[in-house]
Amino acid sequence: ATMPTKQHYSQGLETYRVPMSLYATNRVKVITSLLSKLTTSSISQGIVLLEGGKQETRQDTDHEPVFRQESYFHYLFGTNLPDCYGALSFVRGEHKSVLFVPTWGEEVATVCGESPDFEELAEELGVDLVLGVDSLSGWVADELGRLQSEKGVNGSVNGHSSNDGPKLFVLKGLNTDSGNYAKPAYYQGIEELENMKDEDTLFNCIAECRVHKSQAEIDLMRYTNFISSQAHVDVMRKTQPGMMEYQLGSLFMHHTYYNGGCRFMSYTCICACGPNAKILHYGHAGRPNSRLLLQNDMALLDMGAEYHCYASDITCSFPVSGSFTPDQLAIYTSVLNAQVRVIEQLKPGVSWIDMHRDAEREVLKGLIGCGVLLGGDDVDSTIECMLEADLGAIFMPHGLGHLIGIDTHDVGGYLEGNPPRSTRPGLKKLRTARVMEEGMVITVEPGCYFINRLLDGALQNEKQKYFFNEERLRDFRGFGGVRLEDNVVITAAGCENLSQCPRAPQEVLDVMAGKEWPPNNDILPG
Amino acid sequence: ATMPTKQHYSQGLETYRVPMSLYATNRVKVITSLLSKLTTSSISQGIVLLEGGKQETRQDTDHEPVFRQESYFHYLFGTNLPDCYGALSFVRGEHKSVLFVPTWGEEVATVCGESPDFEELAEELGVDLVLGVDSLSGWVADELGRLQSEKGVNGSVNGHSSNDGPKLFVLKGLNTDSGNYAKPAYYQGIEELENMKDEDTLFNCIAECRVHKSQAEIDLMRYTNFISSQAHVDVMRKTQPGMMEYQLGSLFMHHTYYNGGCRFMSYTCICACGPNAKILHYGHAGRPNSRLLLQNDMALLDMGAEYHCYASDITCSFPVSGSFTPDQLAIYTSVLNAQVRVIEQLKPGVSWIDMHRDAEREVLKGLIGCGVLLGGDDVDSTIECMLEADLGAIFMPHGLGHLIGIDTHDVGGYLEGNPPRSTRPGLKKLRTARVMEEGMVITVEPGCYFINRLLDGALQNEKQKYFFNEERLRDFRGFGGVRLEDNVVITAAGCENLSQCPRAPQEVLDVMAGKEWPPNNDILPG
Ligand SMILES: [Mn+2]
Ligand SMILES: [Mn+2]
Repeated sequence: ATMPTKQHYSQGLETYRVPMSLYATNRVKVITSLLSKLTTSSISQGIVLLEGGKQETRQDTDHEPVFRQESYFHYLFGTNLPDCYGALSFVRGEHKSVLFVPTWGEEVATVCGESPDFEELAEELGVDLVLGVDSLSGWVADELGRLQSEKGVNGSVNGHSSNDGPKLFVLKGLNTDSGNYAKPAYYQGIEELENMKDEDTLFNCIAECRVHKSQAEIDLMRYTNFISSQAHVDVMRKTQPGMMEYQLGSLFMHHTYYNGGCRFMSYTCICACGPNAKILHYGHAGRPNSRLLLQNDMALLDMGAEYHCYASDITCSFPVSGSFTPDQLAIYTSVLNAQVRVIEQLKPGVSWIDMHRDAEREVLKGLIGCGVLLGGDDVDSTIECMLEADLGAIFMPHGLGHLIGIDTHDVGGYLEGNPPRSTRPGLKKLRTARVMEEGMVITVEPGCYFINRLLDGALQNEKQKYFFNEERLRDFRGFGGVRLEDNVVITAAGCENLSQCPRAPQEVLDVMAGKEWPPNNDILPG
Repeated sequence: ATMPTKQHYSQGLETYRVPMSLYATNRVKVITSLLSKLTTSSISQGIVLLEGGKQETRQDTDHEPVFRQESYFHYLFGTNLPDCYGALSFVRGEHKSVLFVPTWGEEVATVCGESPDFEELAEELGVDLVLGVDSLSGWVADELGRLQSEKGVNGSVNGHSSNDGPKLFVLKGLNTDSGNYAKPAYYQGIEELENMKDEDTLFNCIAECRVHKSQAEIDLMRYTNFISSQAHVDVMRKTQPGMMEYQLGSLFMHHTYYNGGCRFMSYTCICACGPNAKILHYGHAGRPNSRLLLQNDMALLDMGAEYHCYASDITCSFPVSGSFTPDQLAIYTSVLNAQVRVIEQLKPGVSWIDMHRDAEREVLKGLIGCGVLLGGDDVDSTIECMLEADLGAIFMPHGLGHLIGIDTHDVGGYLEGNPPRSTRPGLKKLRTARVMEEGMVITVEPGCYFINRLLDGALQNEKQKYFFNEERLRDFRGFGGVRLEDNVVITAAGCENLSQCPRAPQEVLDVMAGKEWPPNNDILPG
């Protein structure tokens, strides 16, 4: 069994101390889940084998981008070292964790520092054993042999006979956000174990474990949310017309790294001002946050830092000038109403699809309120007709939110046994259609955008065009959009919002004018 | 022929405006070089085909690290767009440049922005034509056919007959820093052109072109050096005992991005304080700049930003406390003497090996001066004996410097026809052994480190041990090290130091105490 450890990961000073027991808990969860899946078979021992991420170089050069660990591997072993393997060897509920790390000679030590000390590293990470990667192949073969003989001694387990030999469980499964497959651990020689390899069981177990965050994971994500929220506030205060969008991103990254120890962003900063706000993943190489901020721009800043590989994903929208125009206030308020309505309802048992629909209702209501859409005599029933006509997806062409954890778009959105992806506009963009369960952390990020292509399509669409006041719509053609995004954990009775940004319009303006935030300090983590 | 363009790349505000004619010049240089290599054959037309870098995702997830262009591709086409191809079609000295870019549909446009407009992009980049990547295969086949018929019309070129058909020149060659090979452009269908493909000629041409910087390239690198120097000064002023190393890196990255528009660092920040300074490439994932700065630490900060893919690579060393101890001053001064001695001598015709040796001489002289090494009656001849015994490599176990350009460790260090890599300690670490030529940009980065493993080896070594005062050496065991690195361009008559950091000990202390830097502004670029 994994030894208890009092070790922590931290970036020093006031940064968060991540208890390494977090990863021990993750390991126990995965082994327990795996055993529960195996009860119908007669397997009760085996090895879970994961391959960590590799240190890469850029094309043919020796340029090495800073390494960030592969997410499944981080979940179980909690180390930032590249080029590792990790194994959990288990017999029924008992398991031991073994980390295999690269080692190097003296010449490399001069350049990169000493090769890791196995005992120190085991102590630091709270794993049972650390070995060199060069001993991986031999260790797996020996361990499988040992488990085989263990089985001989304990022919009968839990009342039924254990006929099958130990299995080597590797990861293989579809990431439903990327469409790519997790790569099963590979090393030279593993081919000889083909008949013991199981590629079918582990993925669902570990992905489902990752969906349900432990208390330690939630505490860590409260920290990443805290530091990212604080950085958003800092950026809000410093934003001025005449700045470049990327300067807002630079302020954010510096704040979270300098003050929070966050070396990585969860994703590329989206600093979308003015009309750019309608480009949902603005900020990539082709659209590199290169606009000059103008007085009347709304800023949409979608930025989140990660700490020890746990993400945050927060979006603030605010007027660059420091005061809302009536139209800006109207759109902002409708998106805020959508966010509030969802967060108020979130608790175990609630369907994410229903939440998406409710968010659309508030956005549409707001658009009726400012005259872009026509509400008729019975606004509520008109809104239902609008939903029926898929009008929500014209203004919010993305999902309401996504599971978040070690990946920003975290795994488990469409794991088997859960509701499938919808085929309807808007709903089909949802990265999960699951029913909420305690321990899920999910983003709530309604938005409202004015995308000419979609609007023009709607104005041509027989089911949609009658809802529009085309003349009033013209006022919003260059508006861009508004998005508000918080990270919320589902609790037994409801939910907790981990994010701490000013949201009410007056709060936003007050913070921009220099007022203190948060108003009091009792929400500080730790 | 490529059209002249008045377009610039810039990050707005006061950031540098890179003339896109820089890349037109690069293209002409490469075609000219290629033709000069082909004079012995009867080929005078063909296509140079490069494949740009790909937008990658992290493992199986949809996480997209910010894309940075492949360096050869950037050299010829100057675009940050991922997933492109580029071609130069030439007949004798005339060529046209064609960029092939990915295009996408409306659904992706909502997320990433509109698909590029071909004409706008051609104008912006100053290339002759922009097409979609889907037309690459057809275009190459057609163009080769056209060149073939062109040859028919002009059977005799430059007085000798042109018997051979056009060739498709792709990149293949060894990067002598990484040991990896540049990957020849590949697309589905290129196999059919196997008999027209030439993998042997292009690499040496383009790599040698990259070694000799044009005036526009030098001007751009003067800017990256300016902004990085300024950022180093900012960090120096803010450094205090009690900070974490990574905070210095965060300050640097923020300064260069916020003020200079530099989205990328040339390489991972090395913020090595106290004993960490002896780890030459400190700062990677395994040693993530995680030390607390102590009062008596020396800081060794090796940090450089790039702008539109052109690098800078600067190292400053200074006492965290703001004042040198006598030992710190002695080591610092010996490294500075080495740097000054090299820069004073640099001009066309000087051998880089000789410069490395001279740097070693100064470091050894400094170590004699502070009593770590024994100089005997005739210090100069003792130093020659020390070099003969490879003692320089004990204290400076890396090369004096490297070519720098679009890559930090730029190409061309050991191209054929140039001096080969030495096999002796120290010298074998040099990334080039070339004789200096006008237009080369090279780092001058002498260092002196106290690496116990190397020192203990030397104390056991029959040829080396007699030079040591072992007792005095003990004072330096935990010292770490000092490195000073500037980027220098070789001019017709000498060299120009592009870097602008305080170097004299008093300058360093003055800047740390808040004095203005640079003393006057006449070195500002633009
Ligand atoms: Mn999100
Ligand atoms: Mn260097």
